[in-house]
Amino acid sequence: MGDQTEAASTGQTDLESAFEENKNRILGLMNAKKYIHARDEFMALNEVDAAEVFGEAEAELGIEMAVILFRMLPKDASAEVFSRLDSDDQLAIIDKITDRELGTIMQEMDFDDMIDVLEELPATVVDKVLAKSTPGERKLINTFLNYPENSAGSLMTPDYIELKKDWTVGDALVHIKKVGMDSETVYTCYVKDWGRKLLGIVSLRNLVTYDETTPIADLIVEDIVYVGVYDDQEKVSEAFTRYGFLAIPVVDNEHRLVGIITVDDILDVIEEETTEDIERMGGVIGADDREYLDTGVFRHYRNRFPWLILLMCSAMLTGLVIAHYELLLSDVVSLAMYLPLLMGTGGNSGSQASTLIIRGLALGEIEMKDAPRVLWKEFRVSLLLGASLSAINFCKIIFIDRPENALFVGLTVCCAQVLVICLAKCIGGMLPLLAKRVGIDPALMAAPFISTLTDTFACLIYFNLAAIFFTRLV
Amino acid sequence: MGDQTEAASTGQTDLESAFEENKNRILGLMNAKKYIHARDEFMALNEVDAAEVFGEAEAELGIEMAVILFRMLPKDASAEVFSRLDSDDQLAIIDKITDRELGTIMQEMDFDDMIDVLEELPATVVDKVLAKSTPGERKLINTFLNYPENSAGSLMTPDYIELKKDWTVGDALVHIKKVGMDSETVYTCYVKDWGRKLLGIVSLRNLVTYDETTPIADLIVEDIVYVGVYDDQEKVSEAFTRYGFLAIPVVDNEHRLVGIITVDDILDVIEEETTEDIERMGGVIGADDREYLDTGVFRHYRNRFPWLILLMCSAMLTGLVIAHYELLLSDVVSLAMYLPLLMGTGGNSGSQASTLIIRGLALGEIEMKDAPRVLWKEFRVSLLLGASLSAINFCKIIFIDRPENALFVGLTVCCAQVLVICLAKCIGGMLPLLAKRVGIDPALMAAPFISTLTDTFACLIYFNLAAIFFTRLV
Repeated sequence: MGDQTEAASTGQTDLESAFEENKNRILGLMNAKKYIHARDEFMALNEVDAAEVFGEAEAELGIEMAVILFRMLPKDASAEVFSRLDSDDQLAIIDKITDRELGTIMQEMDFDDMIDVLEELPATVVDKVLAKSTPGERKLINTFLNYPENSAGSLMTPDYIELKKDWTVGDALVHIKKVGMDSETVYTCYVKDWGRKLLGIVSLRNLVTYDETTPIADLIVEDIVYVGVYDDQEKVSEAFTRYGFLAIPVVDNEHRLVGIITVDDILDVIEEETTEDIERMGGVIGADDREYLDTGVFRHYRNRFPWLILLMCSAMLTGLVIAHYELLLSDVVSLAMYLPLLMGTGGNSGSQASTLIIRGLALGEIEMKDAPRVLWKEFRVSLLLGASLSAINFCKIIFIDRPENALFVGLTVCCAQVLVICLAKCIGGMLPLLAKRVGIDPALMAAPFISTLTDTFACLIYFNLAAIFFTRLV
Repeated sequence: MGDQTEAASTGQTDLESAFEENKNRILGLMNAKKYIHARDEFMALNEVDAAEVFGEAEAELGIEMAVILFRMLPKDASAEVFSRLDSDDQLAIIDKITDRELGTIMQEMDFDDMIDVLEELPATVVDKVLAKSTPGERKLINTFLNYPENSAGSLMTPDYIELKKDWTVGDALVHIKKVGMDSETVYTCYVKDWGRKLLGIVSLRNLVTYDETTPIADLIVEDIVYVGVYDDQEKVSEAFTRYGFLAIPVVDNEHRLVGIITVDDILDVIEEETTEDIERMGGVIGADDREYLDTGVFRHYRNRFPWLILLMCSAMLTGLVIAHYELLLSDVVSLAMYLPLLMGTGGNSGSQASTLIIRGLALGEIEMKDAPRVLWKEFRVSLLLGASLSAINFCKIIFIDRPENALFVGLTVCCAQVLVICLAKCIGGMLPLLAKRVGIDPALMAAPFISTLTDTFACLIYFNLAAIFFTRLV
């Protein structure tokens, strides 16, 4: 977390509109070739906003203009802005600037940001960048690049402050004064033992409130939460949300401290993980980090096709059920009228249940062992819902619709509705748990899948009941 | 953010299982009435875990036992744990402990936590608590309690560190040493002008890296992002995610600094807002902060009924469409067989689009002005999807299903499918934008609503096409 982010600027309560104004003014100035004015305005932005203006400039004025804008930035700011661009834009810039400029940017960039950038770039460009670093750096970079995507290792930075156990607070503050500006955070410092194993942490809050002569050993908190270098980022973000950390240490298998992760990076992870969950729940698979508008039509197609074809197959199953009861249907055509109603309430009540369970699982509020409680709760809720909805429905059929054999149609529809809602809620409640059990992402068991599944069951239940009631009748 | 949270403990990489073990051991010891052992184990937990153990103890051993456990905690820890409990548990504790104990807890609690607690308690209990505070405190508490729920004002704390413009770094560090332990954060300090207006911020990182003689005036960052006291918490969390802040200042209408919000509190807000969005997208309305398992059957019923009844009504509309074409359906019963397929792919492809747009809106990636681009993208994606799905479908109808008039049925189904997918994707893409425009939460325009809506359109399109094709045929 650079100091810049701690002091990002806009000076307006209404963030969005103030930023829009600045952006349009800068683009206007660029367009009018008033580069000096544009530079002054651009340099007054913080790096987050500057990165967004760069993106807009690239889209509206072309990459040449955008690179002119980018080159106006001072060295340290250009590294910060660069690390926040899309990888397409990063590539375009690397293509346009000199090797020396690139070297400077890479040197100024925070270590974890550099790793993020390198992970997205093509191998040839990565080699070009690595050629500019010392053998020692290159080794460290390669180690970090090798951590699996979405692991704690791929998120961490080695730029933490290390204090020695036999120092005093005064020694520590002198050390921080020296290295503080190059570290990811100064607010939590780390103490290792002789085997480079993590011993504990010391907060800067303690360092500035205790006397200079206090031994560091007295301030070390030894019993701390840490994550393993191969732990999934979801687990890291859970730890942050649960405990409200500013930073968390990352250790390897031998419990040696290899890096730290700071809360600002975790905010991005949380956003990313939530987006993945929500998109999966909406039936979009394999979406990457690209924004909606930056994703091409073919990629959108590819992300959506698998679910649709799967769901189409299961809808065909429902069709077979209907085909099977074709004779009954041609006898009592009015039965078809209530099919959307049953399929609709079934699908929706099932996805209500699955949504709640998927979210509960994601937040750790619901666990495997709660399955019986979930089932019992869903069963009772579905009885209540089924009873009230079908009562309304029955009245409507008898008094408003008045089809032929109204009583029998009404009975069939209402009995089917109660059964369908019960089954849908129980399936919706259990499938996410089952998915988690067998190692599938529970988010896949959301509305699209559940409603397609319950459609089939709704048809089966409905026509079977109808067959029973109407054979009696005939 | 107390120092405790910066140094929360478990000392295990596998957070969850380590915690489960501790929890079960403590509950076992309590059950065996080995209170002294239980206390030692309980006191070794950090306050987040302790609060969870309290909740489990209450559920498994009853409130009496849980309160015994709670009373074992030292003063400062008990305040931290108390602030993290459900409001039901807080009420139960207030009921069991003496007024003096309650007074101590309230005194030890962080100001923003106390406001959170008071907001959830019944008015009579709030009065009882307020009676224990000085008139000055009471006035401040009442001001904070009056900020609307989910506003920046309801999240902030007045416990920030204020530095004077004419101080030096040395003066500032002396001041921080004095008040640091009672402040929410020491890592960002605030400077006001003579009219109590926010002038700017100074980071502790700068204070510990610059010389003691440096004037504070040189370190003030004046161009900062802040929020208004009545701004919605969603806006606050957007600012944190966008800029990676540790804390953000909150100002009133006169630009006077009234409090700060720290990142740890925002992690909870993000979780809460995301849960609300996801639940709304799943057709659950009005759910509160309660966890799934803690919510009673009737409340679950109440949260789910409104959507279901609304969706049932629109499903009835679809039924009317079918009823209107009863004659056609009784002529060509095989048409009914493909109804679930059309309704299914329509609903699912519509909700894919709406999911992406809702999430894009929530992240600020998509704005109102992008509507034409969204529509154009969805249109092209839907043509691709419609073409490939209906091609598969056509082959299946002709070569596998072989209904009577296979060619006509196939043409009807496939033309209908392309049209339905196009319409569904465009509706799914546009409705969230439209909702935002008129001030409705876009998350309501998700799967349940979209799929019910497209069901009706699917039926209309299908039967109209069938009528056209089959009147030709007959």
